[in-house]
Amino acid sequence: MLESVTMTKILDGRAMSRNIEKTLLRKVSNLALRPKLVIMQVGNKEESNTYIRHKITFAKRIGVAVWHKKYDEAVREESIVSDIKKYNRDNSMQGIIVQLPLPKRLSASRVLEVIQPDKDVDGLTSASVNALLRNESGFVSGATRAVMAILDREKVKVAGKKVVIVGRSTLVGIPTALALVNRNATVTICHEYTKNLAEETKRADILITAVGKPKLITKNHVAPRQIIIDIGITVVDGNRVTGDVDYDKVKDKVKAITPVPGGVGPITIACLFENLIEACAKKF
Amino acid sequence: MLESVTMTKILDGRAMSRNIEKTLLRKVSNLALRPKLVIMQVGNKEESNTYIRHKITFAKRIGVAVWHKKYDEAVREESIVSDIKKYNRDNSMQGIIVQLPLPKRLSASRVLEVIQPDKDVDGLTSASVNALLRNESGFVSGATRAVMAILDREKVKVAGKKVVIVGRSTLVGIPTALALVNRNATVTICHEYTKNLAEETKRADILITAVGKPKLITKNHVAPRQIIIDIGITVVDGNRVTGDVDYDKVKDKVKAITPVPGGVGPITIACLFENLIEACAKKF
Repeated sequence: MLESVTMTKILDGRAMSRNIEKTLLRKVSNLALRPKLVIMQVGNKEESNTYIRHKITFAKRIGVAVWHKKYDEAVREESIVSDIKKYNRDNSMQGIIVQLPLPKRLSASRVLEVIQPDKDVDGLTSASVNALLRNESGFVSGATRAVMAILDREKVKVAGKKVVIVGRSTLVGIPTALALVNRNATVTICHEYTKNLAEETKRADILITAVGKPKLITKNHVAPRQIIIDIGITVVDGNRVTGDVDYDKVKDKVKAITPVPGGVGPITIACLFENLIEACAKKF
Repeated sequence: MLESVTMTKILDGRAMSRNIEKTLLRKVSNLALRPKLVIMQVGNKEESNTYIRHKITFAKRIGVAVWHKKYDEAVREESIVSDIKKYNRDNSMQGIIVQLPLPKRLSASRVLEVIQPDKDVDGLTSASVNALLRNESGFVSGATRAVMAILDREKVKVAGKKVVIVGRSTLVGIPTALALVNRNATVTICHEYTKNLAEETKRADILITAVGKPKLITKNHVAPRQIIIDIGITVVDGNRVTGDVDYDKVKDKVKAITPVPGGVGPITIACLFENLIEACAKKF
């Protein structure tokens, strides 16, 4: 008798991102206008620089113009707000991103709130979040949209599936939980207060982590039927990027898994531009 | 050997409501102003009339003035919006309620959005919901606040507890889930697509239902350690009110339970007025 060998499917984010890129390139070339995105950055944080560079590179490849507006660390909140208002009115600009985190001195929620919902391609305004909560149409963040893209691509029937989300951040964990409830999944939200995390995570059909704590999810936290989507990003040893999952030990124990790097990250950027291209067409 | 007999604790919402009433009465008498709440009602729905009557009765008992503004079924949305704007500016008015549901012709979300967050005592504007999502201070609905009040009163340490919420309505299920995540519970959201509901609900330390489906939760859905909070309200046989839980069969199988009627309902109304009295003091 032959032993049945099941291979774990490695969910290749770079390949998925390239696929989305192709579609977007075609869509952009069919547009009457050249889409334009403004990325507003305060200060010169190295991590932010890296993220922005990735966005600009992707934008170039699909024919989107990016206006990278850099502010001095000491900029007044009113200057940023007044610029956002200007970009809201500017019809040549379809998307507005405020690169987070902002210096503590500034109120991110006050600043973000000024962005017009139909240009809020990061899905961070109250209006966008509220639309998500009400299961109405609106922008969701690239990371949340990336999770949906992975599940769609894998043809996962999300309705009725058990989803466990580890991490309850305002930017990723909670919006992703809401988006999956909207897709009719049974969703459990776990975090640092969860007792016996492994007991919760092992019940999942789809396990999503968005914490930023390397090796939080070990082989004892997973089960063979699972799809693991790792949104965690931590820089270790100065320059190496790692997720929340102890990837090498987990990868042969599950059905499918996203690596880090090369998993959710590249898809997130592609999904941001999916939002932008939708912003060119529809108004919420 | 004596068999250990444990009595289920019936969580008496009327008694809790009376306690809150006493505290509010004292608070109101210490205020320099007489608090005023406006309740805006479109049409003449019998259920709405009943709810509003309960609110007015409670208000009278604690010395709060209620301005019940009734609109014809055919009222224009702009009239309501313009009145809300007037009430926003009126400093003698601390709370604004738009009684739901509105006729389908009108957009509830557009109308509600006009309410100033610091007068949004029902916790329904984007700003209030967003504050909840960000775990920042803001008003939450009477029903969500009632759940917290019950857990506080029972001295339940919510952090790390397993909470299962059945029902994902925008008005009750989802906000209550978010509020409990903010209190550090591990929260699972179930709904009509959940497979094997009983398997999920039995895992809960705290089981909350907000569906509006009588006898959805049977004795096979519960476990002895559980606190059951039933927010469901359905009118059966023309005039009898019932919850989501098959109360008679469940009540001896759990640690504590709210009956319907006389459970969450009366506390919800008291909590609405807790919001109003806070609106007299603080601005968000």
